[in-house]
Amino acid sequence: MTAHKYQALANTIISKIAAGHLRFGEKLPSIRALMLSHDVSKNTVIKALAELEKYDYIEARIRLGYFVKFKHIENNTPVTLNAEIQPVEVTIPQIFYDIMQRSAAFDISPSCNEQYQSKYLLQLQKDISKATKVSPFIKASYYDSPIGLLSLRKQICTRYRNRDFLMDESEVCITSGCQHSLFLSLFSVCKPGDTVAVESPGFYGIIQLLEQLQLNIIEIPVASTTGLDLDALEQAASKWDIAAVVVTPSFSTPTGALMPIKNRQRIVTIANTHDFAVIEDDIYGELGFDSNLPPVKTFDSEQRVILCSSFSKSLSRDLRIGWVNGGRWHEKIIRLKLTSQLASGQLQQLAVAEFMANGHFKRHLHSFKSSLLLHRNQLLSALLQYGPSAIKYSLPQGGLALWVEFSQEINTTKLYSTALKKNIVLTPGQLFSSAGHFSNSMRISFNHPYTGQRLNALKQIINPDNCQGL
Amino acid sequence: MTAHKYQALANTIISKIAAGHLRFGEKLPSIRALMLSHDVSKNTVIKALAELEKYDYIEARIRLGYFVKFKHIENNTPVTLNAEIQPVEVTIPQIFYDIMQRSAAFDISPSCNEQYQSKYLLQLQKDISKATKVSPFIKASYYDSPIGLLSLRKQICTRYRNRDFLMDESEVCITSGCQHSLFLSLFSVCKPGDTVAVESPGFYGIIQLLEQLQLNIIEIPVASTTGLDLDALEQAASKWDIAAVVVTPSFSTPTGALMPIKNRQRIVTIANTHDFAVIEDDIYGELGFDSNLPPVKTFDSEQRVILCSSFSKSLSRDLRIGWVNGGRWHEKIIRLKLTSQLASGQLQQLAVAEFMANGHFKRHLHSFKSSLLLHRNQLLSALLQYGPSAIKYSLPQGGLALWVEFSQEINTTKLYSTALKKNIVLTPGQLFSSAGHFSNSMRISFNHPYTGQRLNALKQIINPDNCQGL
Repeated sequence: MTAHKYQALANTIISKIAAGHLRFGEKLPSIRALMLSHDVSKNTVIKALAELEKYDYIEARIRLGYFVKFKHIENNTPVTLNAEIQPVEVTIPQIFYDIMQRSAAFDISPSCNEQYQSKYLLQLQKDISKATKVSPFIKASYYDSPIGLLSLRKQICTRYRNRDFLMDESEVCITSGCQHSLFLSLFSVCKPGDTVAVESPGFYGIIQLLEQLQLNIIEIPVASTTGLDLDALEQAASKWDIAAVVVTPSFSTPTGALMPIKNRQRIVTIANTHDFAVIEDDIYGELGFDSNLPPVKTFDSEQRVILCSSFSKSLSRDLRIGWVNGGRWHEKIIRLKLTSQLASGQLQQLAVAEFMANGHFKRHLHSFKSSLLLHRNQLLSALLQYGPSAIKYSLPQGGLALWVEFSQEINTTKLYSTALKKNIVLTPGQLFSSAGHFSNSMRISFNHPYTGQRLNALKQIINPDNCQGL
Repeated sequence: MTAHKYQALANTIISKIAAGHLRFGEKLPSIRALMLSHDVSKNTVIKALAELEKYDYIEARIRLGYFVKFKHIENNTPVTLNAEIQPVEVTIPQIFYDIMQRSAAFDISPSCNEQYQSKYLLQLQKDISKATKVSPFIKASYYDSPIGLLSLRKQICTRYRNRDFLMDESEVCITSGCQHSLFLSLFSVCKPGDTVAVESPGFYGIIQLLEQLQLNIIEIPVASTTGLDLDALEQAASKWDIAAVVVTPSFSTPTGALMPIKNRQRIVTIANTHDFAVIEDDIYGELGFDSNLPPVKTFDSEQRVILCSSFSKSLSRDLRIGWVNGGRWHEKIIRLKLTSQLASGQLQQLAVAEFMANGHFKRHLHSFKSSLLLHRNQLLSALLQYGPSAIKYSLPQGGLALWVEFSQEINTTKLYSTALKKNIVLTPGQLFSSAGHFSNSMRISFNHPYTGQRLNALKQIINPDNCQGL
């Protein structure tokens, strides 16, 4: 359990509201009942209720108890694609590149000065300063080995042990971030003209990569709770020759879906049967509010799962440190890393290894996830309070973002341009598909607090009246 | 003039010895004559003579003056390739990748603790520490723009202004090093199956890239003084369809050749006539002992020259900061950088921009080049004193390495394996050609001082008797 107990309890109640188990106007169980059913102290229940009240999920009625406020959150149903599932070439309009660049910040209001500020980030900066003093002449004169610093690779393996995945440091190659890992993987597995299956809606960085590497795309629907639709993947693999699937099993962007363990096992079975590579994007793997599932790579029996991740979403985007475990393609990936940029910097690697060895990363994650849960609840609360009645959204149990679906007449790509004039950056749904799906959806991040200026920005983009006014 | 005056004078005299204008046993001009002919003080002449004496180029004979010691250095003649010049596919044996990885250090004796230690490197580390304090929360939360930090791009443009090349900061994109710049450039200019002309002998990093990108290679001979043979390039371009030429006009590895201005102009003319891209590797561009010529890009009239460089050889290999001016392919290159790794880290960029703005980079270069010249002279002196009589070598006026040619029966690739057992890393000639040329040559770096353990290592690899004994 990473979040504070009261936050976890509040989260559970929100989930019940979202799933319709607790409905608008319904009375909540008594404090005593909640204490017993959740095995927590009275103080925890009271703090949880205060939290829920603060964000307008519930209201206290004197002498009567607590009641669910507003309507319940409609859980987003699995997305169904109207178009036939088939491989196509990828061509991304230039305007989308501009949007992607801005959207990488996961912030609708980049000019807002309210930021998540962690004392552990200050500790990390201290560790970097300290690392500058370690052999500066040697660092300046010699390149690091292309696979990266041993001490850091060891720390990364330790993190995975906590998720029941055992790997050896020799199986890890340090990269310049998760996008770099994905690039190295796709380049090593596929050749131009190959077909790659991706999540739909799914991470636009993958779609860009497929375009750059001249690969065909096949979009597989995603359920906003359990992720990639494996029946659809199996059907596609039976019909078409697929070289690889790229999947984000934990808190996939944009939906925040979490693939259950049995699906993680099944995707490996499908890949074994149909002989394709599974490229696993694990970048949000440690960002579960309650627990972190083992990666798909854990169930890899034929060295065909490539695990890609980084510290960009869990610690700092500026480190530019990611990693890859390339399975049977590992040597090829290392060679490509060597050829395309020789080595990574040792300074940040040294600092992060030290930061992790001293337990700061663990403490940072605890604190960071607590903030993410808070921000998610602020966001959900604002969606409830200020969003139109036809709005639907996903309810992620971790990660950095959720997926919002408006009624059909709203076009979020058009909205993007008008919002930008007000310095508001929204991430339109069409970015998450190469086929132009999801024009009435958008991704909204909860990486930052929804208060002040950012809350005002949010109100503007989720209210259809404001939308039209923009 | 970057080196101290006395070093420059000593260097001029070594060049005369090398070119055969001053022969073994010949008397040097008098101190007074040297003062007049080089317009320097008596003190400068005396220090230069002391330097030459120290490294055994000359000897003082009482009351008679100074005399050239040993034989003169034979200037390496332009390399001629026996094989027909034609495009071929590239396949590099795995063993060569291992050698390349080790050779990237430019050090025959990596276990030796005698290093070039500059106070400016300490200043750089201080600037990095200082930069950690600049907006740590913002840096952790937001990616840098893919083109990189404006202040750094401005400083890079300023450096080029000193070399009479004017460019705007909007034309520069920051990368993860020169190898990364070359990768982005070749990927953007060529498609699999295209033919690329390269220097022979030339940088093995390019040969690797051609293999990875499935490009054909056409090896153009290099003269060890003036670089790429432009007549041969023109003939090849007339006969074959060439997509690009990769050229290192300043202090090309392995020969250290310096392409004269008129050749820099002519290669652009040839590229214009035959419609191919010129990918210019300028990584040693500021490492001239006496002067730094403008890059080929200066003479680019059709936006077909791509300028690639980095701080790895001039300041620190650990920064992982390079840059590229992509000419007509610039947008494509930026997009590929975004897609393959999103952004560069801001920390080091901030620190280097500050380091440069305060004049430290300029001072560092002055001091560093002075050391390089000293190390080169130590190396030449050792080659003279301990090398076999049939040895030939190039005499670079800058950069980090020179090219040594042994008699035909010596195979430096075989020598590599035996030397490695003694912890000596030599860089065999065959690495610098995809066709297996140069088996009796090697590159020797003068990045590090040739004293103590490293001098002993050098003696072993340049003496044929020791070679056989290895």
